[in-house]
Amino acid sequence: MGETAWLWVGVAGMTVGAAVLLVTGPRGSKDEHNHTILHSFVPMVAAALYLLMALGQGSLTLGGGREFLYARYVDWTITTPLLLFALSKTALGEARTRGGLVFALLGADVYMILTGLVAGLSPSGSEAKWIWYLVSCGAFLAVYFVLWGPMLKEARARSANAAEAYVRHATILSVLWFLYPVVFLVGPDGAGMITPVLATLLFLILDLTTKVIYAFVTYASTKKVSQTSPSENREPVLA
Amino acid sequence: MGETAWLWVGVAGMTVGAAVLLVTGPRGSKDEHNHTILHSFVPMVAAALYLLMALGQGSLTLGGGREFLYARYVDWTITTPLLLFALSKTALGEARTRGGLVFALLGADVYMILTGLVAGLSPSGSEAKWIWYLVSCGAFLAVYFVLWGPMLKEARARSANAAEAYVRHATILSVLWFLYPVVFLVGPDGAGMITPVLATLLFLILDLTTKVIYAFVTYASTKKVSQTSPSENREPVLA
Amino acid sequence: MGETAWLWVGVAGMTVGAAVLLVTGPRGSKDEHNHTILHSFVPMVAAALYLLMALGQGSLTLGGGREFLYARYVDWTITTPLLLFALSKTALGEARTRGGLVFALLGADVYMILTGLVAGLSPSGSEAKWIWYLVSCGAFLAVYFVLWGPMLKEARARSANAAEAYVRHATILSVLWFLYPVVFLVGPDGAGMITPVLATLLFLILDLTTKVIYAFVTYASTKKVSQTSPSENREPVLA
Repeated sequence: MGETAWLWVGVAGMTVGAAVLLVTGPRGSKDEHNHTILHSFVPMVAAALYLLMALGQGSLTLGGGREFLYARYVDWTITTPLLLFALSKTALGEARTRGGLVFALLGADVYMILTGLVAGLSPSGSEAKWIWYLVSCGAFLAVYFVLWGPMLKEARARSANAAEAYVRHATILSVLWFLYPVVFLVGPDGAGMITPVLATLLFLILDLTTKVIYAFVTYASTKKVSQTSPSENREPVLA
Repeated sequence: MGETAWLWVGVAGMTVGAAVLLVTGPRGSKDEHNHTILHSFVPMVAAALYLLMALGQGSLTLGGGREFLYARYVDWTITTPLLLFALSKTALGEARTRGGLVFALLGADVYMILTGLVAGLSPSGSEAKWIWYLVSCGAFLAVYFVLWGPMLKEARARSANAAEAYVRHATILSVLWFLYPVVFLVGPDGAGMITPVLATLLFLILDLTTKVIYAFVTYASTKKVSQTSPSENREPVLA
Repeated sequence: MGETAWLWVGVAGMTVGAAVLLVTGPRGSKDEHNHTILHSFVPMVAAALYLLMALGQGSLTLGGGREFLYARYVDWTITTPLLLFALSKTALGEARTRGGLVFALLGADVYMILTGLVAGLSPSGSEAKWIWYLVSCGAFLAVYFVLWGPMLKEARARSANAAEAYVRHATILSVLWFLYPVVFLVGPDGAGMITPVLATLLFLILDLTTKVIYAFVTYASTKKVSQTSPSENREPVLA
């Protein structure tokens, strides 16, 4: 299959994923309904950016004729903070005094994506590309640090259910997200050791896993954690 | 009158509108003051973008020589979420457990505007333009769905005053906003069935109605609704 | 020293500043920890944008061959709202009923930066440049108005410690920020009365002062003010 065909698979997978998440997502309580909304937006946004790429409108031609799929970075700039925000809700519940921690997590994440974008835009083989790649990896380490340091402590302080769900979700994200900079490294935006088609296929598998499959995994835990929320949030959504 | 003249009318109308809203807007309570601030920002932002267009800096020349007023979309990306946020405050008051609902409303709205932007940028007569137009209309339906489904229920649960104001405001927005994709459809960014000058005039009338006249209409209801807020928010602003 | 050398001084100064702030910033209470996170992000963001300029990737060549450092405006669009948000926390503590006031402050600030960006992009000597410069100065006056009007009143209503810290911080920002439009006015984005190298040096001094030195000054007050917060926020961060 060619690159465009894989991109259409992305459009279809994200669209179906979003629809199924919306329809089957938990909505017994306000917490669960909020969770469903957040997690459905992720593949809905990805569907639009895959559509942009499938229609041939999601790329720029850079110097040297390299085709640069800027749409990926738009997708990630929107969807990765949403995923981390949902994860921080698992750790913090409705606690509002740790806004700084959520800011640190999402801020480091957007820093990572945007410096990664500059790395991708920098000319192939230039020093600048690798400087930006290292800066982006540094921000990635900061994301890990917040996830496994202060945020984990908050989850443990919240409840045993929350901590258990948090550790499961954070482990999945930590492993899957680690693979993105690896594909970047060997792909056309990095060292160019694999073909653009293969990079597209690998990103497609990663995207479907982190955006759709991950959402179903977290849904399973959400109902349980929600029962440790303040009673107000456990009230059923008005029906 | 030519297109530039109408754009200057937009600058003047939005500037005067913002000034009058700021000066005459209700500020007896914190709720009312917040409402005035939100609703004054809308024409202030529109004034800047109309100025950009009036000075000839708000457009791009696309392939085929088509003049594309990107400034409109910048305006809408900022002002439509503000209007919907103010409307959601009418429904929810200070309730903080329905953040997901506000996110769904504003998220669908920005999705609608940005996919509409891609539709506008797509070449005249291309398939891609109409695919994006349909995606944008789908997001518009999602906005309607949230407004008239879960958000309406929240307003009813809040108070009779809130529900009455909410229904009035949501009805006005629903009708006026419906006309935007119609003008887009026949205008230069769509099928090109009307002249750019006429499209500018129609958008000007719509913009002044939804951004200035609508604000005065909602001000009238705000004082009444504010009296159903928790007592803390009814305290007068420090003077 | 040439312009690039000064830009590398900016990279180094911001990076060291961010690291020292992160390590030495107060974190006894949640309030203080949040404050440290916010104030460390400011030089971290500035470091990335200085790096972009130092590597020669942060500028555009405009008509007439003028080199336009767009990266400055990206920096300011992100960092100035963060600084004002931290200042509004000093005034308001955890009070959540004045969201409109914070919105007014940050909204006017972003309005100022983005209309300043359009001024910078407008052709040298054009009328449009000076119209946008005046619009941006108008938004700056609105920032001053909110800082010294309603926000000051909130700080006074909060506590004597908060008011004292607020006045000190707002005074420093008001004086330092006043110098930015002056350097813009005489620099290459304005009337072009000083060389680009001198403008870069002056902005570097201002940036290091407002982003690093200012952060240390505010740290000194934060611990004191934090003791007037609700008891929940005085709890030590989980260690």
